[in-house]
Amino acid sequence: MTAKTTEPIDPAGTGTDGRGAPGEAGPSAAAIEAGRRAYELDRSHVFHSWSAQESLTPMTVIDAEGSWIWDGEGNKLLDLTSQLVFTNAGHKHPKIIEAIKAQAEKLCTVAPQHANDARSEAARLITELLPDDINHVFFTNGGADANEHAVRMARLHTGRRKVFSAYRSYHGGTHLAVNLTGDPRRIASDDDAGVEHFLPAYTYRSYFNAADEAQEAERALNHLRDLVMLEGAGQTAAIILEAIPGTAGIYLPPPGYLQGVRELCDEHGIVLIIDEVMSGFGRAGKWFAHQHYGIEPDIVTFAKGVNSGYVPMGGVAMDDAIYATFAERAYPGGLTYSGHPLAAAAAVAAISAMREEGMVENALTLGEEVIGPRLAALKDRHPSVGDVRGVGMFWAIELVKDKETREPLASYGQTPAVMSELVAEARRRGVLPFMNMNRLHICPPLNTTAEELIFGIDVLDAVLDLADESIRGG
Amino acid sequence: MTAKTTEPIDPAGTGTDGRGAPGEAGPSAAAIEAGRRAYELDRSHVFHSWSAQESLTPMTVIDAEGSWIWDGEGNKLLDLTSQLVFTNAGHKHPKIIEAIKAQAEKLCTVAPQHANDARSEAARLITELLPDDINHVFFTNGGADANEHAVRMARLHTGRRKVFSAYRSYHGGTHLAVNLTGDPRRIASDDDAGVEHFLPAYTYRSYFNAADEAQEAERALNHLRDLVMLEGAGQTAAIILEAIPGTAGIYLPPPGYLQGVRELCDEHGIVLIIDEVMSGFGRAGKWFAHQHYGIEPDIVTFAKGVNSGYVPMGGVAMDDAIYATFAERAYPGGLTYSGHPLAAAAAVAAISAMREEGMVENALTLGEEVIGPRLAALKDRHPSVGDVRGVGMFWAIELVKDKETREPLASYGQTPAVMSELVAEARRRGVLPFMNMNRLHICPPLNTTAEELIFGIDVLDAVLDLADESIRGG
Repeated sequence: MTAKTTEPIDPAGTGTDGRGAPGEAGPSAAAIEAGRRAYELDRSHVFHSWSAQESLTPMTVIDAEGSWIWDGEGNKLLDLTSQLVFTNAGHKHPKIIEAIKAQAEKLCTVAPQHANDARSEAARLITELLPDDINHVFFTNGGADANEHAVRMARLHTGRRKVFSAYRSYHGGTHLAVNLTGDPRRIASDDDAGVEHFLPAYTYRSYFNAADEAQEAERALNHLRDLVMLEGAGQTAAIILEAIPGTAGIYLPPPGYLQGVRELCDEHGIVLIIDEVMSGFGRAGKWFAHQHYGIEPDIVTFAKGVNSGYVPMGGVAMDDAIYATFAERAYPGGLTYSGHPLAAAAAVAAISAMREEGMVENALTLGEEVIGPRLAALKDRHPSVGDVRGVGMFWAIELVKDKETREPLASYGQTPAVMSELVAEARRRGVLPFMNMNRLHICPPLNTTAEELIFGIDVLDAVLDLADESIRGG
Repeated sequence: MTAKTTEPIDPAGTGTDGRGAPGEAGPSAAAIEAGRRAYELDRSHVFHSWSAQESLTPMTVIDAEGSWIWDGEGNKLLDLTSQLVFTNAGHKHPKIIEAIKAQAEKLCTVAPQHANDARSEAARLITELLPDDINHVFFTNGGADANEHAVRMARLHTGRRKVFSAYRSYHGGTHLAVNLTGDPRRIASDDDAGVEHFLPAYTYRSYFNAADEAQEAERALNHLRDLVMLEGAGQTAAIILEAIPGTAGIYLPPPGYLQGVRELCDEHGIVLIIDEVMSGFGRAGKWFAHQHYGIEPDIVTFAKGVNSGYVPMGGVAMDDAIYATFAERAYPGGLTYSGHPLAAAAAVAAISAMREEGMVENALTLGEEVIGPRLAALKDRHPSVGDVRGVGMFWAIELVKDKETREPLASYGQTPAVMSELVAEARRRGVLPFMNMNRLHICPPLNTTAEELIFGIDVLDAVLDLADESIRGG
């Protein structure tokens, strides 16, 4: 836990120097000027992800600490996004910074074919957090290539090509990974990638006319089982699923669903790949979100929280059966920065700090005791809030035009204008939420305090009046 | 330039303490013990690239500095590999280490949608080194995803799908990138990826019965032109080529070849993607290897040397026409660590240090004055050496059974036993070369000194006797 609990909170940056709480180190005038220059150069030379480049006015981030960031004008904001849901240990965690500095002095980089102490220790620590028969890690640079390699391993392990992944999912931006993905970002790159998409268990917006979670689990499983039969179980290499789908909506699988998928895989020799890129490393209040559901995956992919994104790293953790396939036969895949020492040292420090400071437990407890009840109250108060759901520090608020019909505030793939207004107003009030289509996500660092969460949710509560007005107006 | 030139060279680690040159800091007994533990954990938990896992006995790297590394026993080795051809500024360059430490303190990470000063400055510096109309950089985590995104941009820019890439090439390990690749590592993942392979211009092993470079250029161009016609120029989005193919053999394109490819692309509105992942950032004695050939690519991909691999980073630099396609229309691709501040700060420091210390010029000069003549002499002396070729700090020695027939020392995709013996003997003598099939590559850091190069080449000269014996024996 950081010392933040005892600090006075003045998050909107209303201190006379624009730095937030009095006496707290915030950006200097020089930092703000450097931020202006950064913005100009960004607009001249930086090409951004998932965007029409000339429509962008990116927020400059000139400083950050713990659960807070400072924008280009020096305003202090509570970061409910963890950037892209990866600063699980918060910004500027001193233990991770120290580990990076020490490893930079010791040895920044080593080729993947050699052995290196930082990489070895990171692999040991990660496998320690996973089921007993998951003992090996293939390190990648991020989540996308982790999923690409997981699929390759599954294909070679089974000798089959077809892979099933869910609609309303995200598995990465490279070609195969974006084809695995089941959100609108896939469509421009849609290709014959050997991927079949199935409808997920998503109780609030059931594709199966389910009345409750039990019915949703049963019907979604029947649907998946049917599709696998119709496409050919004997041709199916893998089913890949986010333990809890993240950007697609933080919709928790109903009880029994993941167990059912596990059984389906066992029945047909299909590899179960659980994507924990966003949900892993404490985000959902357990080290890995699948641990809420009592299943053991064959392969777990990860990135983001593994080292809080301080240095790019992802990976594929595999069980002994997958490993055995490549014990005597070469695995035909690799990358230059696999097991990068600087990234590995940051992972070792991040995992150790998360353990020592009880961050995962904090996430679980505050999710149950603070976020859950407050979002429930917020849902009662706002006609525009159709659903709130989540666990740990992993929550979604889903906005609707009508609570009864559950009609989303915007069509699939669209972002309603009011969402941008709402986020802008939240920023003016000192809070940065994560926005996707008709949803706001609350995914702060795992060591965010109760006081910070209350402040953040209170701001969201206030700005949701804008969404209420928009549906009254419509 | 480092201060290495004035140091006595005792690289085989024959000093009484096993640390190399007297008084030079080498690994302590504790470091060696930590290395042993690293090796054990590696064998228990680390899954390695491109390998049968149980056949591996990886070398432990416990320390490194400049052009030297120390193995698990504390032996000092001249690193002619630059690891995987990426430590262009050498190990432990003080300016890059300082920049990483400073950025770690300042701000390790920021999500890609925000603006950040380290990323902005890196983009400015990189575009400054490229043609006038290349003004934007999309940062990735490495070379594979850079090539994946370059192809996506080309496909969306042209509205076409087909991509041509060369046999005997390497473009990365993710699914689309490995399908672009034209070496044996592709074959296990071969798929309908919209990729057509063509035969490259490779004068020493001409596929076109060419007698000289001019004929090779002409015939290889005719071949490529024919294939593009037969497959459909109007269906072709891009041609992707390494400026100088790296792992596949460091075979320099003959004069006129790349200009001819450029003209073919212009004629049909095909995007020319030049892969500078290995050849860029000074490796070939120019900032980018394509600058030897007077062409302007539409897209340049890079990684490795951009920051000497101190922090994982790659990228796609694009010209204004490609950029314009995504000015008002969203680019459907992205990644969490795009433009990672720590990686960007390392790039800024690496590029600045390379400029200040004249590393690129050093590579060009020592390639011409030291490596070239000495490899020519070595070729004369050894019956097993069929060809030596290269530029800058980017050289290959190709081993043959017979100089006249040019029959390689092993079949395509195979590594002859003598190669491993040869590398083992070189290591015993204090030198680590890069090995691929029937070739040894010499790719040291760009600031390696003449004395170090002479030492390294002398060792290779000595150990090549083993190859000579193997062909006499056969």
